[in-house]
Amino acid sequence: MLRYQPILAITGLLLVALGVVMILPALVDLSAGNPDWMVFALSGVVTALVGAVFAIAGREEEPLGLNLKQAFILTTVLWFVLPGFAALPFLGLDVDYADAFFETVSGMTTTGSTVLTGLDSLPPGIHLWRSLLQWIGGVGIVVMAIIMLPFLKVGGMQLFHAESSDRSEKVLAKSFDLAAWIGGIYVGLTLLCALAYAAGGMTFFDAICHAMTTLSTGGFSTHDASFGYFGDNPELLWTGSFFMLAGAMPFVAYIGALRGRPYEIVRDPQVLALVGLLLIVCTGLAVQLTLTGEFTFGQALRHSTFNVVSVVTTTGYASLDYTQLGTFSVGLFFVLTYVGGCTGSTAGGIKIYRLVILWEIIRRQIRLLAHPSRIDPLRYAGRRIPADVPPSVLAFLTLYVGTTVIITMILAALGLDFVTAISAAVTAVGNVGPGLGEIVGPAGNFSSLPDAAKIALTFAMVLGRLELFTVLVLFDPAFWRW
Amino acid sequence: MLRYQPILAITGLLLVALGVVMILPALVDLSAGNPDWMVFALSGVVTALVGAVFAIAGREEEPLGLNLKQAFILTTVLWFVLPGFAALPFLGLDVDYADAFFETVSGMTTTGSTVLTGLDSLPPGIHLWRSLLQWIGGVGIVVMAIIMLPFLKVGGMQLFHAESSDRSEKVLAKSFDLAAWIGGIYVGLTLLCALAYAAGGMTFFDAICHAMTTLSTGGFSTHDASFGYFGDNPELLWTGSFFMLAGAMPFVAYIGALRGRPYEIVRDPQVLALVGLLLIVCTGLAVQLTLTGEFTFGQALRHSTFNVVSVVTTTGYASLDYTQLGTFSVGLFFVLTYVGGCTGSTAGGIKIYRLVILWEIIRRQIRLLAHPSRIDPLRYAGRRIPADVPPSVLAFLTLYVGTTVIITMILAALGLDFVTAISAAVTAVGNVGPGLGEIVGPAGNFSSLPDAAKIALTFAMVLGRLELFTVLVLFDPAFWRW
Repeated sequence: MLRYQPILAITGLLLVALGVVMILPALVDLSAGNPDWMVFALSGVVTALVGAVFAIAGREEEPLGLNLKQAFILTTVLWFVLPGFAALPFLGLDVDYADAFFETVSGMTTTGSTVLTGLDSLPPGIHLWRSLLQWIGGVGIVVMAIIMLPFLKVGGMQLFHAESSDRSEKVLAKSFDLAAWIGGIYVGLTLLCALAYAAGGMTFFDAICHAMTTLSTGGFSTHDASFGYFGDNPELLWTGSFFMLAGAMPFVAYIGALRGRPYEIVRDPQVLALVGLLLIVCTGLAVQLTLTGEFTFGQALRHSTFNVVSVVTTTGYASLDYTQLGTFSVGLFFVLTYVGGCTGSTAGGIKIYRLVILWEIIRRQIRLLAHPSRIDPLRYAGRRIPADVPPSVLAFLTLYVGTTVIITMILAALGLDFVTAISAAVTAVGNVGPGLGEIVGPAGNFSSLPDAAKIALTFAMVLGRLELFTVLVLFDPAFWRW
Repeated sequence: MLRYQPILAITGLLLVALGVVMILPALVDLSAGNPDWMVFALSGVVTALVGAVFAIAGREEEPLGLNLKQAFILTTVLWFVLPGFAALPFLGLDVDYADAFFETVSGMTTTGSTVLTGLDSLPPGIHLWRSLLQWIGGVGIVVMAIIMLPFLKVGGMQLFHAESSDRSEKVLAKSFDLAAWIGGIYVGLTLLCALAYAAGGMTFFDAICHAMTTLSTGGFSTHDASFGYFGDNPELLWTGSFFMLAGAMPFVAYIGALRGRPYEIVRDPQVLALVGLLLIVCTGLAVQLTLTGEFTFGQALRHSTFNVVSVVTTTGYASLDYTQLGTFSVGLFFVLTYVGGCTGSTAGGIKIYRLVILWEIIRRQIRLLAHPSRIDPLRYAGRRIPADVPPSVLAFLTLYVGTTVIITMILAALGLDFVTAISAAVTAVGNVGPGLGEIVGPAGNFSSLPDAAKIALTFAMVLGRLELFTVLVLFDPAFWRW
């Protein structure tokens, strides 16, 4: 018999916390003399009250604890219920609930696609709220990826279970400690980023908002032109590139570095693969842009780096409309939309460690054709990969592609053109943000899509954020008979 | 020490045979009073002479036999050398060798993309030659898929090794017998198809040519308008749909049926999955087309069936420009381009049995999340799947997608637009034929592509036809040290 009390209680406590956080944008709007503060205050009260009711209804004598089944249900419930309430403040703008929910899910999943237009004239509270949604969603996913997903054995994440449990027995006794470390590092990096942005010329408010959406690899901006608003500012572009990459690094390695093992981060195969890929792609694109003659090499390098890092880390900022840089760049950015950052980071996408494992698997398959009898264990970071990891990773990859295909078909059936449909699907599942084409491209806006398309994309964002299987297991009748 | 003599000898013998076959189009052109017969005669003599030199140079005292390494090398060598000579007759037209080679590879891999324009005014010998290339390529791939690939353990084909070796011990003592059975069935089906086409109103020559490119799921037509030339002819459309599907069925099951086990074909999971998929998609599309008002249900059903079957069986005929049937049809036909027919048939693509196994793997992964300790063997056709099959299949699928991505990037770098690049890549690797968009779509022509793009697509066609790994193993240094 499944007990729903812990699910209810945890959801309730987090709703109360969400309601409390709404005080921040309310205060900002109040101090700016903007009447929008009332919407935040009211939304906060409603959210906290509903949360309190849930928490009380779910309270138990024993301490809180979750079994595997409850953990699966809780995860998906949280990623639909929290945005359901976090969407309330957007109703103060001239948008319907479907748009508000899309914007919120796009925020909390750190996707960064937006349906709001005229960003530059929105009240500061709304900007702070959009940034907070991404910032909270970002740290939420890091904690979930490090603590929960390895335990749920989703998509090859058990590979990191062994690692983190080894480490936790030695240095970090409890998940709670781990979460506190992650939180501290996240806050510290965000402050550093905000200072660097302010030093580079952003206003204090812009610096805070963009720092939050940079570290969370979210990509919401306070300006319609995204980073293009700041022009060809080398300091801001390089700062942005650096901290987006920082958000896409495995946070466990930061903890290692702070505890005296700085070499861990440079030995991590996914870090090496990610940095190597970025070096090749950014340099290559910069050379191509320089040769076509519109940019100096310095300009080409900072813009190609900024936009490539933005897409690969699944942030989604744009310093210019990179899809206008020729036919090759369209194909390149489409492919990069799939890649993603490291696991245990705020980045989405396929995740680079899965591509590393895939590469090892394909190389082994080719070796096996030539040497059918050779015993040939797969290795990752010098260790043997457990036998259940390759099928998990490969099933994840194919399901990932399959999901984008199904979402593409749904969007095409709703009347979107092929490029818009496929790129919107891929960008949503990957939590990247911009797609290709005039409507959903880096210079476009998702607001003109039909409501049904927004709902499909909302579902795709959550599905991608929770690494597919976490959600899809709930659709398996056997799960409920368990 | 690798011995190249058997590779040389077999290649030589097949070149002699190819040269002899060129007599057929020479005779047709001669009887039609067309001077093009001399090109065929000359090409035939050159091909047969070179083949004879190879065969003599490679002759050995012992009987011919191949080890695994030689088999891999021979396979790839054949699929580049035979088209290299089979392309010669096209030089009699006003095309360069790159175009001639593209056309020939497109023929022998049963892809069906064409660079020739003004088909309706070409000499009959050229039409017969194009049809023969597909017909020979088609039976070649069936024999290779049934006899060689399971032995090479490529992309999960070992699943069919067990089956066919069981069977071969009981009923068919040797591969040679098996090849003879396949050849007989192939000739029989082609004759039936030609009779049905002639009865439906085609000229005798068109009926023969189209029957050859139907059973081989090749898709070359003698008319620029492809099947659209014959108008809205129900008899021809249904005949075409039926025999394209016949070409995409597992030929082993036909042998079973002729030997008194007709139930085998209806119990085969890939046949059931393919027919089920086609029923759903064709009916769904027909209903949609009827509702949009341009067609009666009968018209909609025969055209949707013909074009969907054409793409799924990787034939590539078009009875109308199906990409003009609305945005949904573009997405639908793009996805269908990936599917492919049954293994051991003339069809290309991913092949439906891999999708069946993929489905089983994903379902098991989801079940395992809920029941981590359950022992849960995968089954196919009621038998346990050997442990090495799932990783083979999954590596194949991801490599398939990866190959299309790389080819897409190359084409985009050569200046093709995104839709042309991605659909040309997918249609080439899948050996389907038409892509999307004005250039490579069902109403377009590959002739305007740059030469480099044609070469990339030629390589993609062979790669897809040989199930990727057969070719890629040759790029592994370990293969050559073996």
